[in-house]
Amino acid sequence: MTPQVLTPSDLQAILDFTVILAKTAGKLILDGSAAIHASSGDSDVSEKKNSVDLVTEYDVKVEELVKKEIQTRYPEFKFIGEESYAAGSRPPLTDDPTFCVDPIDGTTNFIHGFPFVCISLGLIHNRRPVIGVIYNPFLEHLYTGVKGQGSYLTKGSSAPLKLPLSSLPKPLPSLSQALLAVEWGSDRCEKTISAKSSSFGRLAGDPAQGVTGGKMAHSLRSVGSAALNFALVAQGGLDLYWEIGCWPWDVCAGIVIAEEAGGLVTGSHDVFATTMATDQFGEVTEEILTGRKYVVVRAIRGNLGETGSDAQKRIIKEFYDTVEDVETN
Amino acid sequence: MTPQVLTPSDLQAILDFTVILAKTAGKLILDGSAAIHASSGDSDVSEKKNSVDLVTEYDVKVEELVKKEIQTRYPEFKFIGEESYAAGSRPPLTDDPTFCVDPIDGTTNFIHGFPFVCISLGLIHNRRPVIGVIYNPFLEHLYTGVKGQGSYLTKGSSAPLKLPLSSLPKPLPSLSQALLAVEWGSDRCEKTISAKSSSFGRLAGDPAQGVTGGKMAHSLRSVGSAALNFALVAQGGLDLYWEIGCWPWDVCAGIVIAEEAGGLVTGSHDVFATTMATDQFGEVTEEILTGRKYVVVRAIRGNLGETGSDAQKRIIKEFYDTVEDVETN
Repeated sequence: MTPQVLTPSDLQAILDFTVILAKTAGKLILDGSAAIHASSGDSDVSEKKNSVDLVTEYDVKVEELVKKEIQTRYPEFKFIGEESYAAGSRPPLTDDPTFCVDPIDGTTNFIHGFPFVCISLGLIHNRRPVIGVIYNPFLEHLYTGVKGQGSYLTKGSSAPLKLPLSSLPKPLPSLSQALLAVEWGSDRCEKTISAKSSSFGRLAGDPAQGVTGGKMAHSLRSVGSAALNFALVAQGGLDLYWEIGCWPWDVCAGIVIAEEAGGLVTGSHDVFATTMATDQFGEVTEEILTGRKYVVVRAIRGNLGETGSDAQKRIIKEFYDTVEDVETN
Repeated sequence: MTPQVLTPSDLQAILDFTVILAKTAGKLILDGSAAIHASSGDSDVSEKKNSVDLVTEYDVKVEELVKKEIQTRYPEFKFIGEESYAAGSRPPLTDDPTFCVDPIDGTTNFIHGFPFVCISLGLIHNRRPVIGVIYNPFLEHLYTGVKGQGSYLTKGSSAPLKLPLSSLPKPLPSLSQALLAVEWGSDRCEKTISAKSSSFGRLAGDPAQGVTGGKMAHSLRSVGSAALNFALVAQGGLDLYWEIGCWPWDVCAGIVIAEEAGGLVTGSHDVFATTMATDQFGEVTEEILTGRKYVVVRAIRGNLGETGSDAQKRIIKEFYDTVEDVETN
């Protein structure tokens, strides 16, 4: 069998289909949220059992809806979804077009009614992310990206805005000027929490006021959705996002959207150190896509004589020199 | 001069005026954001100087607009605004109706284009917050509250939703079930950063995996706006928010909105310890309003035989037993 070719107009047609799918799934997510809120107000039911059951129920429902629609429209495409894979197993990648889907990204937010929740729909082809659609139905924010065709934010029924939102990439002299996204994640063992606490403290701390290695970043944000963090970096509202322990379906769509907005994505400390001086730097390889450690930095206008890519490399180096590596569990 | 009486219908009229004012100010905030984005794309201008200047310019512009409109409509009311007071001085409070205004709450977000930015307009009467209006023009989220008349969220042109968004308050057995808002703040000295890092780590950490005193909270969020954190607690999207070092104008409107949604606000560790066993517990006194340390917890349905207020007290006690006290600078 010869490898399938996807032309730019194929990609555009898949994007249109995926956007409609995201909106349909978004309605189901809102239904789920309403069901959770109604049940948690029901004094006859234990909240914990009930809301967790409902989250799982809606996670599965959304994934089944998405999977079915994709199989009907694109029966030859493969499918990787959060709910279809047992946690802990790395999904096998092939060269075939493969949808990579997180039905509800930001599940903790979804349980609590914190409005940073989305569906994340990515398409991988030849082992590289090529289409990304992220839709937050609570804020009606739709992010889309197609490899080689740019990325956009559409708020409600407004016209799409090209990303990044600033007309030209903004400079970023150092981390001391940066707004950084970090997350506490689900691995709460002593080793991880200690590494994160001290890393976050160094990012925030003032070296002139006693914090050894402090970077005095503008601030740190934690919104609890990997996909939306990628999207916020793409739009330029965050300068850099560091993530450990999430899965390809959490980041696949976000990678396309960020890259098409001029952002740069790389993997772990090791991947960064190994690739930073090579031509491969900036390419999201299969190792990075499935490696569960990510850094994404927004488009940057370089200092005098510095390319944008060199500026991104400089910021990531400063970042990785500051934070400790953390094992994924 | 006899103390001024504000009837429920007076309060309603002031609320209507304040909502229109918030929307007008919101337009100016969006103009400011557009100006900052345009300037940062201009390669002839140093970004840092320029965006900071522009933020200050728009902070002052918005406050002047608000102050002027209030003086025209309510010339007898007093005014406390962030920009009108030198940092470090506690604003004097009287029994007179006093608007307490943060023209742009979430200034760091505003500079970066991170969409958690709002205007916060509170009215204090007899030294207690009685009206709160918080408007985020980027998300078109309007939060309103009037003492004794409930609080509401209006998204765009939709109908107002009564707060909290769940039909009945949700239970909260312990911090292990909680989504908590914390902020890194502007005081970045070693003592503060160390206390915050270890406190946040204990909130997130798993005691069964080696974190001494760990609470294994669902997660921690940091969105960078005190007013919007209060609003998110009011709607039930966050369970508790802890803040150190902000000012009455950051929290005045949020206090009314949270309280009217069944939330409970208290002050520092000391204030909590001193008042928790008294009748005064749950009352936002002048000491709390101007004390620069705040905890707000959402409406909670108590465990069997427990009142909602007792449940709130239990959660705050568990929280303050976990985190270190931090000095304000």
